[in-house]
Amino acid sequence: MKIRYGMVGGSLTGMIGDVHRKALNIDEMVELVAGAFSPDQGRNKATGEACKLDSDRVYDDYKTMAKTESSRADGIDFVVVVTPNDSHYGICKAFLEAGIHVICDKPLCLEVWEAEELEKLSELKNLLFGLTYTYVGYTTVKIMREMVQKGVIGDIVSVNAEYVDECMMSLPGLDANDPAVLSDWRMDPKRAGVSSCVADIGTHIEYTVHYITGLLIKRLVATANTYGHVLDLNANMIIEYENGVNGAYWCSNVAAGKLNGLLVRIYGTKGSLEWDQHYPDYIRYTPVGKPPQILPRGCGYLTEEAASNSRLHQGSPEGTFEAFANLYKNMVGSIIKLKNGETPTGNELDYPTVKDGLNGIKFVHAFAESAKNNSVWVNIN
Amino acid sequence: MKIRYGMVGGSLTGMIGDVHRKALNIDEMVELVAGAFSPDQGRNKATGEACKLDSDRVYDDYKTMAKTESSRADGIDFVVVVTPNDSHYGICKAFLEAGIHVICDKPLCLEVWEAEELEKLSELKNLLFGLTYTYVGYTTVKIMREMVQKGVIGDIVSVNAEYVDECMMSLPGLDANDPAVLSDWRMDPKRAGVSSCVADIGTHIEYTVHYITGLLIKRLVATANTYGHVLDLNANMIIEYENGVNGAYWCSNVAAGKLNGLLVRIYGTKGSLEWDQHYPDYIRYTPVGKPPQILPRGCGYLTEEAASNSRLHQGSPEGTFEAFANLYKNMVGSIIKLKNGETPTGNELDYPTVKDGLNGIKFVHAFAESAKNNSVWVNIN
Amino acid sequence: MKIRYGMVGGSLTGMIGDVHRKALNIDEMVELVAGAFSPDQGRNKATGEACKLDSDRVYDDYKTMAKTESSRADGIDFVVVVTPNDSHYGICKAFLEAGIHVICDKPLCLEVWEAEELEKLSELKNLLFGLTYTYVGYTTVKIMREMVQKGVIGDIVSVNAEYVDECMMSLPGLDANDPAVLSDWRMDPKRAGVSSCVADIGTHIEYTVHYITGLLIKRLVATANTYGHVLDLNANMIIEYENGVNGAYWCSNVAAGKLNGLLVRIYGTKGSLEWDQHYPDYIRYTPVGKPPQILPRGCGYLTEEAASNSRLHQGSPEGTFEAFANLYKNMVGSIIKLKNGETPTGNELDYPTVKDGLNGIKFVHAFAESAKNNSVWVNIN
Amino acid sequence: MKIRYGMVGGSLTGMIGDVHRKALNIDEMVELVAGAFSPDQGRNKATGEACKLDSDRVYDDYKTMAKTESSRADGIDFVVVVTPNDSHYGICKAFLEAGIHVICDKPLCLEVWEAEELEKLSELKNLLFGLTYTYVGYTTVKIMREMVQKGVIGDIVSVNAEYVDECMMSLPGLDANDPAVLSDWRMDPKRAGVSSCVADIGTHIEYTVHYITGLLIKRLVATANTYGHVLDLNANMIIEYENGVNGAYWCSNVAAGKLNGLLVRIYGTKGSLEWDQHYPDYIRYTPVGKPPQILPRGCGYLTEEAASNSRLHQGSPEGTFEAFANLYKNMVGSIIKLKNGETPTGNELDYPTVKDGLNGIKFVHAFAESAKNNSVWVNIN
Repeated sequence: MKIRYGMVGGSLTGMIGDVHRKALNIDEMVELVAGAFSPDQGRNKATGEACKLDSDRVYDDYKTMAKTESSRADGIDFVVVVTPNDSHYGICKAFLEAGIHVICDKPLCLEVWEAEELEKLSELKNLLFGLTYTYVGYTTVKIMREMVQKGVIGDIVSVNAEYVDECMMSLPGLDANDPAVLSDWRMDPKRAGVSSCVADIGTHIEYTVHYITGLLIKRLVATANTYGHVLDLNANMIIEYENGVNGAYWCSNVAAGKLNGLLVRIYGTKGSLEWDQHYPDYIRYTPVGKPPQILPRGCGYLTEEAASNSRLHQGSPEGTFEAFANLYKNMVGSIIKLKNGETPTGNELDYPTVKDGLNGIKFVHAFAESAKNNSVWVNIN
Repeated sequence: MKIRYGMVGGSLTGMIGDVHRKALNIDEMVELVAGAFSPDQGRNKATGEACKLDSDRVYDDYKTMAKTESSRADGIDFVVVVTPNDSHYGICKAFLEAGIHVICDKPLCLEVWEAEELEKLSELKNLLFGLTYTYVGYTTVKIMREMVQKGVIGDIVSVNAEYVDECMMSLPGLDANDPAVLSDWRMDPKRAGVSSCVADIGTHIEYTVHYITGLLIKRLVATANTYGHVLDLNANMIIEYENGVNGAYWCSNVAAGKLNGLLVRIYGTKGSLEWDQHYPDYIRYTPVGKPPQILPRGCGYLTEEAASNSRLHQGSPEGTFEAFANLYKNMVGSIIKLKNGETPTGNELDYPTVKDGLNGIKFVHAFAESAKNNSVWVNIN
Repeated sequence: MKIRYGMVGGSLTGMIGDVHRKALNIDEMVELVAGAFSPDQGRNKATGEACKLDSDRVYDDYKTMAKTESSRADGIDFVVVVTPNDSHYGICKAFLEAGIHVICDKPLCLEVWEAEELEKLSELKNLLFGLTYTYVGYTTVKIMREMVQKGVIGDIVSVNAEYVDECMMSLPGLDANDPAVLSDWRMDPKRAGVSSCVADIGTHIEYTVHYITGLLIKRLVATANTYGHVLDLNANMIIEYENGVNGAYWCSNVAAGKLNGLLVRIYGTKGSLEWDQHYPDYIRYTPVGKPPQILPRGCGYLTEEAASNSRLHQGSPEGTFEAFANLYKNMVGSIIKLKNGETPTGNELDYPTVKDGLNGIKFVHAFAESAKNNSVWVNIN
Repeated sequence: MKIRYGMVGGSLTGMIGDVHRKALNIDEMVELVAGAFSPDQGRNKATGEACKLDSDRVYDDYKTMAKTESSRADGIDFVVVVTPNDSHYGICKAFLEAGIHVICDKPLCLEVWEAEELEKLSELKNLLFGLTYTYVGYTTVKIMREMVQKGVIGDIVSVNAEYVDECMMSLPGLDANDPAVLSDWRMDPKRAGVSSCVADIGTHIEYTVHYITGLLIKRLVATANTYGHVLDLNANMIIEYENGVNGAYWCSNVAAGKLNGLLVRIYGTKGSLEWDQHYPDYIRYTPVGKPPQILPRGCGYLTEEAASNSRLHQGSPEGTFEAFANLYKNMVGSIIKLKNGETPTGNELDYPTVKDGLNGIKFVHAFAESAKNNSVWVNIN
């Protein structure tokens, strides 16, 4: 039997709702039964119809949805929140209070206190709170994590990671009051919070590196480039992890020729791992003193756990949908267990949690503080 | 409203049934309601249950299924056939005779007369007959086709294409009577027909090149390498197209280090196009006298048609599932139109047909005949 | 002490003379003292002056040069011939008859009988006759040969190689009588012989594959594309080696976006080797059942022989000059030994000989014959 | 007529002397006539003999060499200094005082005051003082500089550059007193100065970026990783250029799988440029809103200046020797002009000067100071 979910945000006019719905669909574990897709009621209803929902479960607003669904016998088991970042806190809180498991898009919210409150609330309510940090859903990323855990690359000595894109390439030349600038909520501090590109894409670097290496950030120094605007379009950071090792992170939305350019490179005493999300089926692994190897996803010489996250034979490309589906498979697996009074185990526990989301918000604020204060070291943990 | 389909073959023990079902699922246009998944009734029933079918629609054999489904008011609109190649003919014929649209895995069947009969039957019955040649579902492949049609690379002067894999790498060292050899139906002429690797993967080369360029093969010369076995594990061909231009095709299942290595390169008087299925989101396009360009899937400078086949923003990798889903989206779109008494148009007509399948079988036989007869030219059309 | 050489062809107006002179210069084993650089006496003298030759050793023609140099006590030890192909035979013959060692650019000459005569003459006169097949000078190519000889990839099961370029890209659209066509001696059968692109670049495929694998061609089938001209601008061949294995060769001078695109791929029972001359410092090696490895030139895990051909640390790119210099180092080493009455050994024997040049001419003629005769098999050896 | 040079350092036991001599040899503008190759007089003499020097011009020490050569009528026109870094200052000073032009390997010296003194002395004496920052000799690097100067990528908004290698990979696991550590002068602060990896390879990043972009560093923040040793084996920096833009530099000698990994990426308002020294013949150029292009060295669509630095046709790889030769060609061209009482112009002025060397030493010290002082901003200029 499929479990039921609802969605807040994700109307037909955007792309992200459809991506989440399709990814949730892949493993046929869930059924979309409710939604508050848009404050624009025309769009909201149209999306509900396109998703074949009963009209009484297409809600005018998320509060009504949370309340109503929690009181139905056939109410949703979990909600997926894919709205702009500034609304995450309120929405997630409402569903947690209504006793409904939450899966929220990253970043978790705007403020550290919001994140802390959400973390506490989910604990108090004993509810699952997952975040969709896309890239850790890739089989190859999971393989790298496993390799690090097994000591294949030894102790980590250095990290270099970046997420670079060209999506705001037009902004450096524009006036901050240009309509094209004002119309993008990511450039508006009231909606985006203290950061634009670090919140938007830098958090992917932070979490993907943490996921693979297990390293936690102790402190960081940072610079931000706004090119005449209010928020960061380009950012550089030097990281110090809790084990004393350094890393460098670069994120940018003004890098011509780059598209979702997440590149993660981890160097250890016994070898190195490199991963480029443009070719997500391959890991470049170099054991010390040996030539670099190109490890394809799902080959026989890799592990069973890897195979379990791979839906296709080696050589058949997997992409973003499968990464999302892997995230959802584990989170939904956990929710099913919880629903049945059982304890999630194994792969079911492998997903980004509200705690990871909180770390992301701390990271964004540490970045903003350092960048504002002449690149002074700012502690995170 | 979703239309209904059934599946023949594709039990849980194999991977291919699941791939097709997941791909069919992506666009939420269809519902699986019937199946004859395996002659092993245990597997058959288990698959039916896993797919949540009513037990009376899990059939012992495809003949009963065709007959019963065609007589039900809520019978399947189309069948998906994913069995070994030697059974395609009989199964497809049964469903066509029962008045049910057919979508069959490639290659179409074993013999040319079988293919011709299926083609005629589908015409006679006015039924859709599609084939799942995976690679033409990729957005980038569709973009290349569009570029050729618009004259972007001018007149084609040369083609070089290959599909190379390592999956039978162990065979050259083995005796033809070794159990590992005998157990693989692709090496048994009774089941695989006149060819192993050309039928299995060479047909992908043949159709993908045809799809992109529109070129039809006039004749070919060929060599086959069996390494002590009965059927080809490695094959080389020189092609002459109907316009007098030549191409070279290479396919192999004994190429160490290669995994589904489909590489298609098309050279014209005004430019060239290259595509490697390992990096399916990118086209290498070189206009004459200009530097090579790397075209990503779905960027703004490409066409609307391209965008319509792309489910994600540029920079987010798509893979095999999306290619399959694109094939199915068009074929299912056509079937819905036909069901409603309408005429399919536009993208709905963009899928491999039984006629393309027939060309594939002619290609396989021309290969086998040339290879057997000292590499003499053998005409196809 | 440096030994002395002369050059025929290679005036300042072309590039090739300078390339050879610079490559000969790298290891400081030789001194240029004589030349007949061009039938245009202005160019000839200017080149002599630029090369700082004594004016009496800048000859009006090669015949006088051969005669005069052979009679001088301080005459040249060897001649380097870098003229158009149709003049190789006469020039090489004149120097051999004058008792002077010969190093000639590839292809050796136009006709098989010419090549056979030159081979016999060099044997009779006990003179070294080397050919500058550039690519076998690369350290990485030598490493691949060594790996094949040591059995690292087992028995060879398949070969796929190509040399593709865009240099004649303008021709397919031109009339055969267009001045641009007529002015290129490579398109004139009187000067180029039976083939244009196969003689020019196809011979590089033939020899490089032979050098790496040791395989000799037994026979071949071929097609040629002339696009309205007399000689081949694009050619496809299927090869049968003496061990019964097949290979495919493709060469083209009308492949938009390609520049000296030599790609050699060798597949064996235990692994494969791939080499792209655009990235000549790297070999892609895949052992069966293991991931592909990227072997850099000169790393510690490679052999001493490899190191001896590498002038720079791993990681510092080497290119065409070093490849040429490696060829010359061995040939000049041999000539020094012969001059001193000693027998060349080891690496000194590692260079393309007149016998290899003869094989190349046989290959060109077999290609032309097959292409002319409906792609029938033509025997080489 | 060739001009004359001498060399200090570069005995046969090391590789670097030979690389410089071969590179100097390529364009046949110079002649090696004197040397003080090693304090080990056996090695010194052997190198002199191998280089065919007159025995009286193989000097026991550089001071005698500077004095003697400056007093000879046929004395050297310039000296090439390729000794360990801590000796550069004294040697360069001696030759400048003797009135001899100097070309020195990078980094210029250890201390800022040394560099300033050398700069002043060369001005006072009106002598050329060049540095061999290898990578700016590459034709492609020169093309990128030209593109930036012509405004092709607009105003620079971001820089990301790195030089990573695995050469000291064994050190993180070793005790600082291990003989393997102690034996490497680069790890000994008395010989290497305040930095190991930043002085050794970080200076290549600093200068190559400056050369391409023209940007000068205003200030930087840095971290250094010593892994239990005294000097840096891995370093991260955030740069602020004089125009207010930021960049990130990473250098490491403990990055498994990396060999001379210099990667330079420059992002502007109109496009971006990326260059990887492993594939030095290619530039990745992306104009805003267009697909990335792969520009090969020396193609027709590039400039004449580019062609003038390219010794081979497009498609024929050039490497490290040609880069060095390009540096030397310009510096030697200048020296010849100066010798003839003429003023160097055009390409002759395109080489790294003592002023650039001084900037490098300031950079190294700013790095060391920031790393030591809790990553505070340290001004350079």
